[in-house]
Amino acid sequence: MFHSDGFHTLDRPECLRLLAKVPVGRVVYTRQALPAVLPVNFSLDTDSSVLLRTSASSVLVRAIDGVVVAFEADDFDAASRSGWSVVVTGRATVVTDPAEHDRLSRSGPRSWVVARDGVFVRIESDMVTGREISGTPEPV
Amino acid sequence: MFHSDGFHTLDRPECLRLLAKVPVGRVVYTRQALPAVLPVNFSLDTDSSVLLRTSASSVLVRAIDGVVVAFEADDFDAASRSGWSVVVTGRATVVTDPAEHDRLSRSGPRSWVVARDGVFVRIESDMVTGREISGTPEPV
Repeated sequence: MFHSDGFHTLDRPECLRLLAKVPVGRVVYTRQALPAVLPVNFSLDTDSSVLLRTSASSVLVRAIDGVVVAFEADDFDAASRSGWSVVVTGRATVVTDPAEHDRLSRSGPRSWVVARDGVFVRIESDMVTGREISGTPEPV
Repeated sequence: MFHSDGFHTLDRPECLRLLAKVPVGRVVYTRQALPAVLPVNFSLDTDSSVLLRTSASSVLVRAIDGVVVAFEADDFDAASRSGWSVVVTGRATVVTDPAEHDRLSRSGPRSWVVARDGVFVRIESDMVTGREISGTPEPV
């Protein structure tokens, strides 16, 4: 679907394909009643949920465990005024099942920083939206 | 300041210097009680506030005019596991003063898409935070 604003809406398979291409996204949540956002590296699980690895004692985990968050990733090129963005909106939960934690320790994302008390956080991907802009001419 | 988690806190001048280097950031706000995020191109005004240009009738403008939002920009390199992110938290307001609108029409950001009813939105930059990660080794 093309909109009059120049954006093309992406379907779910296309959104998930693009999400898998980038290493970093941004968790969007509320902290002390203010909008908050934190970039993190991530991967997609086999069920297409978003997986992060962080410290169990982090401010992020305290803020988002059990809460609906947004997760955004994008890739834009300013020279050609083109690119895409995808937003996953879903409940974030710390993975507490030991077998699941073991599986993700082998196949899940690795944190860019050392976290001795590392946990995995899963963001459910029931709601995935995306849009693309491709090479709009410079407005006059 | 270096933290044990491998991140280096950036001061305000460094945050503003980095913000000025990238064309696209993300507005973080609340829509229908859910966290929401939208990438936009932007520029910094002479007072370091963040300026966007969008359609007056957009969902974004209706959601954020007069409201405190977060605005995030970043640049990461996965190969070297390094990069930075900056978050501006402040009130967003549509620019309604005609002289100010005229000034920004000459010097402000240009939307990547054509908006016949284009308005400028200013996000105050009283609160600016940033952090940097530089080349952490791969965790074992």
